[in-house]
Amino acid sequence: MDKENETMQNNIDNKVAIVNLGTELTQGYTLNTNAHWMAGRLRDLGFEISYEITLPDDASVWNATWEMIRKANVQTVILGGGLGPTEDDKTRYLVAETFKAPLEFHEECIAPIRAFIESKGWKYSDANKIQAYFPRGAQVLENPVGTAPGFSISQDGVTLFALPGVPFEAHEMFDRHIVPFLAAKDVKPFYCRELRLAGLFESNMAEMFQKVNFPAGVSWSSLPVDDAIIFRTYTRESEEVLKAVEKQLIEALDDKLCVVSTDGKSLPEQIVKLLKGRGETLSTAESCTGGMISSEMVNLAGVSEVFKGGACTYWNEAKEDIVGVPHETLLAHGAVSEETVLAMAEGARKAYHTDWAVATSGVAGPDGGTPEKPVGLVWMAVVSECKRIAFCKKFSGNRGQIRRKSVFKVLDALRRAILEENEQKSTCTKVQ
Amino acid sequence: MDKENETMQNNIDNKVAIVNLGTELTQGYTLNTNAHWMAGRLRDLGFEISYEITLPDDASVWNATWEMIRKANVQTVILGGGLGPTEDDKTRYLVAETFKAPLEFHEECIAPIRAFIESKGWKYSDANKIQAYFPRGAQVLENPVGTAPGFSISQDGVTLFALPGVPFEAHEMFDRHIVPFLAAKDVKPFYCRELRLAGLFESNMAEMFQKVNFPAGVSWSSLPVDDAIIFRTYTRESEEVLKAVEKQLIEALDDKLCVVSTDGKSLPEQIVKLLKGRGETLSTAESCTGGMISSEMVNLAGVSEVFKGGACTYWNEAKEDIVGVPHETLLAHGAVSEETVLAMAEGARKAYHTDWAVATSGVAGPDGGTPEKPVGLVWMAVVSECKRIAFCKKFSGNRGQIRRKSVFKVLDALRRAILEENEQKSTCTKVQ
Repeated sequence: MDKENETMQNNIDNKVAIVNLGTELTQGYTLNTNAHWMAGRLRDLGFEISYEITLPDDASVWNATWEMIRKANVQTVILGGGLGPTEDDKTRYLVAETFKAPLEFHEECIAPIRAFIESKGWKYSDANKIQAYFPRGAQVLENPVGTAPGFSISQDGVTLFALPGVPFEAHEMFDRHIVPFLAAKDVKPFYCRELRLAGLFESNMAEMFQKVNFPAGVSWSSLPVDDAIIFRTYTRESEEVLKAVEKQLIEALDDKLCVVSTDGKSLPEQIVKLLKGRGETLSTAESCTGGMISSEMVNLAGVSEVFKGGACTYWNEAKEDIVGVPHETLLAHGAVSEETVLAMAEGARKAYHTDWAVATSGVAGPDGGTPEKPVGLVWMAVVSECKRIAFCKKFSGNRGQIRRKSVFKVLDALRRAILEENEQKSTCTKVQ
Repeated sequence: MDKENETMQNNIDNKVAIVNLGTELTQGYTLNTNAHWMAGRLRDLGFEISYEITLPDDASVWNATWEMIRKANVQTVILGGGLGPTEDDKTRYLVAETFKAPLEFHEECIAPIRAFIESKGWKYSDANKIQAYFPRGAQVLENPVGTAPGFSISQDGVTLFALPGVPFEAHEMFDRHIVPFLAAKDVKPFYCRELRLAGLFESNMAEMFQKVNFPAGVSWSSLPVDDAIIFRTYTRESEEVLKAVEKQLIEALDDKLCVVSTDGKSLPEQIVKLLKGRGETLSTAESCTGGMISSEMVNLAGVSEVFKGGACTYWNEAKEDIVGVPHETLLAHGAVSEETVLAMAEGARKAYHTDWAVATSGVAGPDGGTPEKPVGLVWMAVVSECKRIAFCKKFSGNRGQIRRKSVFKVLDALRRAILEENEQKSTCTKVQ
């Protein structure tokens, strides 16, 4: 399997640079997620990022950066941050200098800024006036979700967009002002398909995919996330080309049950879809995961059709009282055991009156490990009328990582159990 | 309140550039968190980032970037990613070219690479051999947590460190190889103090802090996060200077209960500390938050002393069965109501035998809103033997944001309720 590099369309105006200004970014106080978000949007529009740069609020580094971008013949520059009303907000000054376009006051911008501030119950102050100054020749970009309007300015074949740094303002303004600008450039978009896989190692996947033939112009990326490996294929050709590759990819898998989805659905989303298809319901009983499974489910809109709720039973007392784990089971086997986790799942299924239930109980650390039950050991269970599955894993990582891995491991076991039921299409033999 | 810019030590070798290579970063498939993590570490060591740059796997943009960095007289460059065994991993080739230092094979690196791969149960292949090639004159940097060793190379006063892109490998190698190198440079560190505030708007805080006198050389940043506003002050002078400023900041607050912590403790951590101090316990009953409150609590190591568990009661049926909300209450007032959320909290307190309980019930959307109970409306409750607090908020944002805001709003109400109890230091009058 060769990783083709995306064929660069060197003579086409599809290059973009993203620059973010902010000492709080370069000092590591704030994680910059805007560039990542915009990169995805740009990719979908068929554009490529040549430079993604974060700078402190400092003119000299901006000037050097601008010089480099100009030399590289990038025609669209997105400059984020630094449009606020305080002294460290330098964007309008820097751009005015760079474009030799002195700042001019736009009286008409004051009313909307003031109205926005007052609609939030804050007090308008003259400090906000600076947000109505823009470089000469700039086009003001309306910001319906914040105080700072943006602006765009074009010169010598390059267009610079200045947007606020606050993520939801930046997203709103990107879609409102930059997407139409780029769409008008008529660049061929990328087609992309997403194959989500769970329950296999990335290196094993890579080995199986070695027999797949990727046609010229098709590139791929493999990205392990919490709930799956996302294997994406993309091309500027057509979606049909990618569908043919996807068919080969699935054929190459030893275990077809690894396929979570081919339509972008996450593991929890896929579970909701499967349960809806069966008209069945789910509940949870969680110890080390502490409610994270139920929270992941509840985060999906429309989950109420299939998810009734779940118990976080962190103390043994709660395992007994809320989901009816027998005191003797806990005494004989401990909280982190096959017997307890099965009793938890069965207890949740009974207490919440659901068709399915999942449960977890483990040692999330950093303390509490023993030679028999080390940190990272987690017992998980999936039960239904017909299924009674329990298994344990030894996860690595810190407390949060061990908990997250447990959540998605047990959800994947649930998904596979439902798929097996679907396969059988017959009345099950009750397990107990 | 003037935002002082950090006094730049222009003649001191405290400038760093971070460059990350990877088309999957610039195409928006992977969020680059390494630069953010390193930025924080560098700040603590007293170093400043001049440029933080992400590039596609492409020699021309690397060359232009390198030229810019060299001109800026940055003496330490950290280059992340591109050390893997596949074709898109270009770092060693680019550095060899840039430093005119041809790649040389380091036989001695093969055994550890092979041992690492085999220890994971994977198969060593000759493709990994490329990971033992380094530019002439480079120092190989051991990687105990992955297959790819890094390297460093110095020339003309600049030192470049090449590290793997996988976050936990990058972190491990940063601490192991770069921290000692930078520490030896004897740059004056930053002192930093963190004041965490909850229950006030950032703009109101800014107004109150206008009367605070920031001495020269003290800078600040204000960062709203999920559970608080983090107001940081920093200086190269001394921690005492910052303590004096912090005292003024707290004095400037109208409501001193807004102070969550001055030692970096998050809101959940502070709650655990307060409950430990009282020897009391907590449980939860969650509808729209769906287990996120309990999951946030369980994520803290050592929480078992105070947190017993909680019920996600997403369906009304579960609200009745698990935490005993009366059927009549749900019929008369609906699930999203003062009466229901109080009954949920009281039910959790009883079912889990805890001193305190919190509950949430709201319309997280995007569907299900009505004129009386619109999307974003969330009822929250805090109960104890002496307290019976219920309140509602109309949160904005998407489903996930509404849920997260609810989690931290009700936890802040709990924190304040416990602090009030601490103040009274008397036996309470039972509320019911």
